[in-house]
Amino acid sequence: MDAIFSRETHLRHMLAFEAALARAEAATDVIPRAAAEAIAAAAGLLDAGPLLADSGDGPVAITALVRALTAAVPLEARGYVHWATTTQDAVDTATMLQMRDGLDLLERELRAVGATCAALAERHRATTMPGRTFLQHATPITFGLKAARWLAMVVRQVHRLRRVREHEIALQLGGASGTLAPLGDRGGEVAVAVGQELRLPVPDLPWHAERDRVANIASAVGVVAGAMSKISGDVLLLGQSEIAEVVEAASGGSSTMPQKRNPTDSVAAVTSARLALAALPVILAAMAHEHERAVGGWQTEWVAVPDLFRHTGRAVTHVRRLLETLEIDAARMRSNLELGGGLVMAEALAFALAATIGRHEAYPIVRDLADRVRGDGVDLRRAAQEDTRVRAALDAAEVDRALDPLVYLGSTELFVDRALAAYRAL
Amino acid sequence: MDAIFSRETHLRHMLAFEAALARAEAATDVIPRAAAEAIAAAAGLLDAGPLLADSGDGPVAITALVRALTAAVPLEARGYVHWATTTQDAVDTATMLQMRDGLDLLERELRAVGATCAALAERHRATTMPGRTFLQHATPITFGLKAARWLAMVVRQVHRLRRVREHEIALQLGGASGTLAPLGDRGGEVAVAVGQELRLPVPDLPWHAERDRVANIASAVGVVAGAMSKISGDVLLLGQSEIAEVVEAASGGSSTMPQKRNPTDSVAAVTSARLALAALPVILAAMAHEHERAVGGWQTEWVAVPDLFRHTGRAVTHVRRLLETLEIDAARMRSNLELGGGLVMAEALAFALAATIGRHEAYPIVRDLADRVRGDGVDLRRAAQEDTRVRAALDAAEVDRALDPLVYLGSTELFVDRALAAYRAL
Amino acid sequence: MDAIFSRETHLRHMLAFEAALARAEAATDVIPRAAAEAIAAAAGLLDAGPLLADSGDGPVAITALVRALTAAVPLEARGYVHWATTTQDAVDTATMLQMRDGLDLLERELRAVGATCAALAERHRATTMPGRTFLQHATPITFGLKAARWLAMVVRQVHRLRRVREHEIALQLGGASGTLAPLGDRGGEVAVAVGQELRLPVPDLPWHAERDRVANIASAVGVVAGAMSKISGDVLLLGQSEIAEVVEAASGGSSTMPQKRNPTDSVAAVTSARLALAALPVILAAMAHEHERAVGGWQTEWVAVPDLFRHTGRAVTHVRRLLETLEIDAARMRSNLELGGGLVMAEALAFALAATIGRHEAYPIVRDLADRVRGDGVDLRRAAQEDTRVRAALDAAEVDRALDPLVYLGSTELFVDRALAAYRAL
Amino acid sequence: MDAIFSRETHLRHMLAFEAALARAEAATDVIPRAAAEAIAAAAGLLDAGPLLADSGDGPVAITALVRALTAAVPLEARGYVHWATTTQDAVDTATMLQMRDGLDLLERELRAVGATCAALAERHRATTMPGRTFLQHATPITFGLKAARWLAMVVRQVHRLRRVREHEIALQLGGASGTLAPLGDRGGEVAVAVGQELRLPVPDLPWHAERDRVANIASAVGVVAGAMSKISGDVLLLGQSEIAEVVEAASGGSSTMPQKRNPTDSVAAVTSARLALAALPVILAAMAHEHERAVGGWQTEWVAVPDLFRHTGRAVTHVRRLLETLEIDAARMRSNLELGGGLVMAEALAFALAATIGRHEAYPIVRDLADRVRGDGVDLRRAAQEDTRVRAALDAAEVDRALDPLVYLGSTELFVDRALAAYRAL
Repeated sequence: MDAIFSRETHLRHMLAFEAALARAEAATDVIPRAAAEAIAAAAGLLDAGPLLADSGDGPVAITALVRALTAAVPLEARGYVHWATTTQDAVDTATMLQMRDGLDLLERELRAVGATCAALAERHRATTMPGRTFLQHATPITFGLKAARWLAMVVRQVHRLRRVREHEIALQLGGASGTLAPLGDRGGEVAVAVGQELRLPVPDLPWHAERDRVANIASAVGVVAGAMSKISGDVLLLGQSEIAEVVEAASGGSSTMPQKRNPTDSVAAVTSARLALAALPVILAAMAHEHERAVGGWQTEWVAVPDLFRHTGRAVTHVRRLLETLEIDAARMRSNLELGGGLVMAEALAFALAATIGRHEAYPIVRDLADRVRGDGVDLRRAAQEDTRVRAALDAAEVDRALDPLVYLGSTELFVDRALAAYRAL
Repeated sequence: MDAIFSRETHLRHMLAFEAALARAEAATDVIPRAAAEAIAAAAGLLDAGPLLADSGDGPVAITALVRALTAAVPLEARGYVHWATTTQDAVDTATMLQMRDGLDLLERELRAVGATCAALAERHRATTMPGRTFLQHATPITFGLKAARWLAMVVRQVHRLRRVREHEIALQLGGASGTLAPLGDRGGEVAVAVGQELRLPVPDLPWHAERDRVANIASAVGVVAGAMSKISGDVLLLGQSEIAEVVEAASGGSSTMPQKRNPTDSVAAVTSARLALAALPVILAAMAHEHERAVGGWQTEWVAVPDLFRHTGRAVTHVRRLLETLEIDAARMRSNLELGGGLVMAEALAFALAATIGRHEAYPIVRDLADRVRGDGVDLRRAAQEDTRVRAALDAAEVDRALDPLVYLGSTELFVDRALAAYRAL
Repeated sequence: MDAIFSRETHLRHMLAFEAALARAEAATDVIPRAAAEAIAAAAGLLDAGPLLADSGDGPVAITALVRALTAAVPLEARGYVHWATTTQDAVDTATMLQMRDGLDLLERELRAVGATCAALAERHRATTMPGRTFLQHATPITFGLKAARWLAMVVRQVHRLRRVREHEIALQLGGASGTLAPLGDRGGEVAVAVGQELRLPVPDLPWHAERDRVANIASAVGVVAGAMSKISGDVLLLGQSEIAEVVEAASGGSSTMPQKRNPTDSVAAVTSARLALAALPVILAAMAHEHERAVGGWQTEWVAVPDLFRHTGRAVTHVRRLLETLEIDAARMRSNLELGGGLVMAEALAFALAATIGRHEAYPIVRDLADRVRGDGVDLRRAAQEDTRVRAALDAAEVDRALDPLVYLGSTELFVDRALAAYRAL
Repeated sequence: MDAIFSRETHLRHMLAFEAALARAEAATDVIPRAAAEAIAAAAGLLDAGPLLADSGDGPVAITALVRALTAAVPLEARGYVHWATTTQDAVDTATMLQMRDGLDLLERELRAVGATCAALAERHRATTMPGRTFLQHATPITFGLKAARWLAMVVRQVHRLRRVREHEIALQLGGASGTLAPLGDRGGEVAVAVGQELRLPVPDLPWHAERDRVANIASAVGVVAGAMSKISGDVLLLGQSEIAEVVEAASGGSSTMPQKRNPTDSVAAVTSARLALAALPVILAAMAHEHERAVGGWQTEWVAVPDLFRHTGRAVTHVRRLLETLEIDAARMRSNLELGGGLVMAEALAFALAATIGRHEAYPIVRDLADRVRGDGVDLRRAAQEDTRVRAALDAAEVDRALDPLVYLGSTELFVDRALAAYRAL
């Protein structure tokens, strides 16, 4: 992603745009064919070094690029460099080419994340563990279900990226104020030819001052970053010393504590995701684009769009690495279900009772039992077996069965299967 | 939009969810039919007042709602209220219903904005005005083209809202930790029945802890807000005292300055759009949802999602009103083309020269003329007619023709036509 | 805080401003004394109801207020209502009065938070627990130290709020464009008199279009919100089922799980803090205030500033309640030090060895021991006692001493004492 | 600012920290003096190249630095490198040193901005121009007053930066979990010695996990960025083709339009200010720092803090350059007062009338006149002279005097003087 969004790649795309434009203008008899070929050849060979060195952080100034390109072509072609176009066409089209490649790379990485999630979902479909709401034990789930939920989210992201790829990526060609005035009545034809050359869809009309395409692509990428923060956040929480259900294989040491195995990829993923999301408000605010070209908003995109893609790319890559090498401690997951007196089975017991005495009666009984478990330190099984209200409704075997996590998983298998099917359909 | 995202509407949707769930569970033989009907009837009649009064800013607590609903049904139905579900199911499904209605309302309002943009684009397709880049005169455009660009953006928004409406709106039904454990193997069936009752698509699996659907809907709405800031921002700039090309019909007075006609709707639209966008980072950050239910992020959605929709709704409505009554001063637009010695035609002159002497030769000549216009106060026409280099390439009539805005509009008509066609295809 | 930032309070402050202005103008012989007294009297008695009902979400429109106030005074005073001032003076001064009260309330609440932190720091200065970095056991700390760190942060906040209270709160009085033109050469005098009446510092010159005062106050409040997210976040993590070192007394139940004691105040504090911080970028962006009055930015403050204070106020109040009733399980804190084979003492052992063999030699030995603890399931004590490299450097008693958390607390006492001293100096 | 926040400078500061720590530990008899001198010498000479090359975007990993430093000292000193400290101490202290230098540089640049504002305020104290509210002519001001308001804001910023410099910049020294355990009872002494060496204030206790100092410094810097967006935004608006009251000397050309003089520094300032403000929410969110070291938030500071300072530094520098070479067209400012029939004097006329007939009577009369000016195209002077209601109250000379901008400037001179005095007192 760093290569796709480097300043050099951006410059190369701008040169490709100038070459494609010249060829398109020759094909539509706007400029001489020989001039177009000379421009295209020079654009392919131009030395990026001095241009990159002379400019700052953003894209290379088009005025400098045009000057260099003009100097690099034969005298008779000079008059046709950058014909009928303007800075914004070159910068925006180059950015679109970068974003197209960036979306493709994100999709590939997400599919790799999906592959690992799918494997985890399959392998751990029966690995019970505590479901946790408000960071407290809730009811049992399986690690396979958790991975299946991550998977379903990743699959949805792939579909979304494909949709923005299809609907939002587009050529920008409008000239100074978006009328293609110097092309007279050939504007439509030239745009089609440029689009073919660059393999970019040609929009109905220029969009230079209406930044909704960029904002929408950026939002989709931002949602990917947010999705990565969910997965890596869960891994961080599961890996805490006291929970220890997963360990990152590629953990990092400490400069002073010899025992440390710090979670490296998940922290890097969280960090990258947050930095990615910080770029998004800048891009959305830039939609308030003044007239036919902005005074500040558009220019912030030059930094914010690359930042967004770069940080999101890193977040996805860290999540991919994280999951590919994640060590799962299935035994610990199961044993954590027993912590705190096994209260994670309280709802299960309540519903077993509810079948006989109704949910409104069952709930307060189990709440009492939970208080006893907390107060006396007995476990829920013993508290239930000893409770006359419970035993009036359920016999000892029924109580035991109600407290078995494996029989209280509901549609878990179904959900895992569906997530896997949606992934396989990609 | 205020009504759609009121706390009372949210409560009504939660009650509709409880009713639909009870009916679905009866239809799948999970609970008795009579109990389901009693629950559904009571849910429809429940007095919202006390529940709303007792709770704070966010959604009414489900625990209180369940208590009230249980008290409102006959004894034999009490045990079946809220069966197999949990707070998050009710809250998330209710929010989805609100967002569905919100998206529909936004689409209607955007189509109304589109209708006015279309009328402006048609009516002013030949109303020339200065195109402005960096807030400086660039080359001529027409006001019709500007309106057509707004229109194209609005049409794209409608398509985007339809896509998120189709792909992201979905039922949430998972129970305590997303397994639908109390439903045993009936979870899938029950979900289908609830979805039918509420006319909500049923997802492959619960998404309570993966907030990408919400984030993606929110992003699409945020892009709408951003689009409104573009339109209203342009109107504000065009309406400045010194430019005066448009006037808001519903302008506001000042408490102290008798002459004032302050732009009311455009300022309100900008304000609302900015407030809408402020809600978006909260929602995206909430994707870092801890385990099976979050500690803070999810809860921020309760405020941020309504805020986002409400402010965006206002932004669209203000833009609609603004455009519906906007006064266009076509004469002023044309006369503004003459300001500053008519330098807005400099590129046109340069391309007219370029046809003979090449763009690289023509550009510096016109730059010299522009300096003379700025320095001596002559206009560009006279400076051009008097310049021997220009007159060596163009005769007097050709110079005049090169400086006529009406013949330097390129593909303007084509672009207006295409924007109108895309709008009509909606 | 809701009362301080209600629309009614804002209206009352605007009326107080109009009253103070009239009196000040009378005192400086700008308007008749009788008119001023009539205006001040009417301002005190004006019925807020209709004005509030007729306006939307933001502050009541000054034009409406001026009309109502004019109607409420005798004929001979009517000409002097709102003399020489403008909307922005009234709105900004009213907001300053609200912010002043808001800062005072925040300070009071923070001092109450500080009182509880101080008590916890004192009481638990010797309650050992695992220090955790990267969510992993690091080295021992005491809960008193953690509370002392919270305390020190809270004390710093109080000092910051006092500084912005002193330097940023100020009267706004400038008239239409900030020149106080209608007052001729009396502007300075009138401002002093208004400031005295409202007990507001008088700035060198109007600041209506330079919003740095508001932005700086808002930032200080935002940092308070952020501080609350630290404290409540730590409590949430400490209260997880598997860690269980603290319990919120006012825990909430679940609608379906009978065992649940969900952390209510800490989740509410995190939620409020995040919502507060969402308002800050809006306020900072509003600094780009156009000319003498803005088109959108200033108007967003009307929503964002109250939101910021309200949410921050809630965050502080939730943290106060949370800490005041927090149950500390000191035994569990101590026993958690033993988890994972007691690896939390690895650094302590390394430094004990380092005194003899150097840190660079000691560190790899202890890393080996840590690997053995993880692999074989022995605890660090036994692994250390059995290791010949360790025993070459330390005898058995020295090993035991090195592994005693109570002797590896360094400057903990000193730091607790200092935080308490800084608090007492408030 | 790029140099201050480069990764190399950060590395140098971390090495300076290690050197200072070693010396401090020698001075307090914790480690041998010879070892400390060897470490300090090696730290000063260490080749940064390989360390920078091997690490990514963030700070060089301390583990690598410690390894390199250990390898660079004699055998007998190796055991004392990085004694009793941890990554966070080195990173945070290095960042504090960078921020201290960054604050100093910002102050210098702001003082230079202030110098130019002061010169403009002095020179143009009588240069009348339209005050503009809602982008509409309001009442007259002088350009000197506008510059004085900018100046007052800049002076306030300098005071704020000094306050955060004094109260927030501090050493971080806590070791693994913030207890300085390996130093036993010497922690306090060592910290004092390190602080002296690095000329950093020593805080009461470590603040590694309470990020309010960083957040508060960052906020103050963010407010500086916001202030720059105000000044550059005003310049952009004043420089529009139709207003043309200022021109940026260092304007940029267009790649296609020969006449263009695009505002370069003001656009760059706006861009930089927005990018700076985008970093702030990241830093504030990072206050939710988990336990004794964070999993993501702290790590985002490594990118966000340098970004914030760099972009803010650029914004200030662009504003400085912009103002130093700004061309003021005083004649245009004055003539713009005549635009639109001179309605900018409507309030002045209303108050001249109000002195006789009361503000409530005068206001509607002048509103009528304004409507006539807009409708008939006469100017306000003629409309007023011809109006019998006006002439019943004012004679012809009084009307003329009421419409003279120079006599309707109120406290303008006073305000300019005060802003200058506050600047000189810096």
